[in-house]
This record gives sequence, structure tokens and C-alpha cells, in this order.
Amino acid sequence: MTANDPDTLSITFAALADPTRRAILARLSQGEASVTELAEPFKLSLPAVSKHLKVLERAGLITQRREAQWRPCRLEPAPLKTVDHWLERYRRFYEASFDSLDEYLRQIQKPCAGTDRPASAHKRPID
Amino acid sequence: MTANDPDTLSITFAALADPTRRAILARLSQGEASVTELAEPFKLSLPAVSKHLKVLERAGLITQRREAQWRPCRLEPAPLKTVDHWLERYRRFYEASFDSLDEYLRQIQKPCAGTDRPASAHKRPID
Repeated sequence: MTANDPDTLSITFAALADPTRRAILARLSQGEASVTELAEPFKLSLPAVSKHLKVLERAGLITQRREAQWRPCRLEPAPLKTVDHWLERYRRFYEASFDSLDEYLRQIQKPCAGTDRPASAHKRPID
Repeated sequence: MTANDPDTLSITFAALADPTRRAILARLSQGEASVTELAEPFKLSLPAVSKHLKVLERAGLITQRREAQWRPCRLEPAPLKTVDHWLERYRRFYEASFDSLDEYLRQIQKPCAGTDRPASAHKRPID
């Protein structure tokens, strides 16, 4: 890898930065599929789908087996696990944000106790 | 949004597909920082860092406050939470993969019971 080559995580994120490629992954999460089967719902040409599959394959997000009658594509979840790990350090931020929202909602609801204003302004229970 | 405009998740993934931008987010996960502070560790020019910050800001991953002396940047975790939600459907795949690995390790360790080969070949406990 030279200094200008993208790193693995960048390749994964770039591959995921397209709604058609994410839809292909969603389809493959239900089971293996051929290129023709993957092309059907998108009204895309086979070469256009093949191009997307190449990007996903380069990112290690899918593999394509060779069989007598077809070449089924298969989801490979390892790069998504890497993304999940990368997110780890940031989780406390949005989890903390939700705790703050809870606290805020708890505060603004205090003066309303005993009135007929609904106390269920958010989905998480007030404990 | 026109048909050619990228969707929110695509904008987020594209913003994350760069090691410098991810390093900026990692720095901001420790607290607010000015553009100059963010530029320091990367040996990048201020315009180069500003360009990265614009991409992150457009993706909603950071905001920049205006203050008298400086314009601190701040991490905004909401788009990362969206990525986390998007990952949800795929988690069972890599969690299942690890269960399979557990099962595989359990199988290959069976014949070694009673020998001096270590049974702790992986981090998860065998239950």
C-alpha cells in the first residue's frame, strides 16, 4: 500500500456510500443471489450491476462463487464488523445524548405533574 | 432532493471514507477544537483541513460555533447513530459467524481433552 492507496476502512465506507450497493447488500442478507436476480429490482443493466458488485467485492463485502449454472453472490460481513468496531468510540456520545434528552424531558415535565398534559412525550420510560 | 442527489446515509459514508476526516472525528471525540488545533497533527494546510471540515459539516458530523476569539468545531454524533441503526440488520451475520467459530473451536478441542494443549484458543468463554 502506498501513501495514496485508500485504507481498508475507507474502501468499505466508499463502497457503502451508494444506495444501490446498500440495497444489494440488503438483498444478499436474505440469501445468495445471481447477478440477474440482483439486477431485477433496480431496473439496471447487468453491466451496471456488475460494476457495483466489483466495488462491493473489492471492499470484501461480497464474494462470488463459480458454479456450473450460475455465479451466486454472497454477503461477507467481516468489513461491517470492522465498521461496528470503529463506531465503538462514538457510541457513548449518542447514548449520552439520549440520556441528556431523557433528563431534559424529565425536567420540563416536572411542572406539569397533575395536569392533563401527556407525560409520554418520548418513547423511553421515566424511571 | 432530485434523483441524482445523494441520500443522507450515502453522504455520511462518503464523509467517513477518508482517514484524515476519521482522525478529525476521533480528535473531536475528546472535545471541541479549533481548525488550527485540528490541522496540527496532520501537517496539512489550513485550507486543506477546512475542506475536510466542510465535508464533515455537510454530512452533519460536526458543527462549528462562532465565538469572539475562535470557531471551535464539535462532534455531532447523530449521523453515526444512523450508521449504527443501518448496521443492525447485518449484526446477526457476524455474531452468527462468531458463534460458528465458537462451535468449530469447541469441536476441534474435544479430542484434546485431558492433554496439555491450551483450551483457551479464543477469548469468549466456552459455556
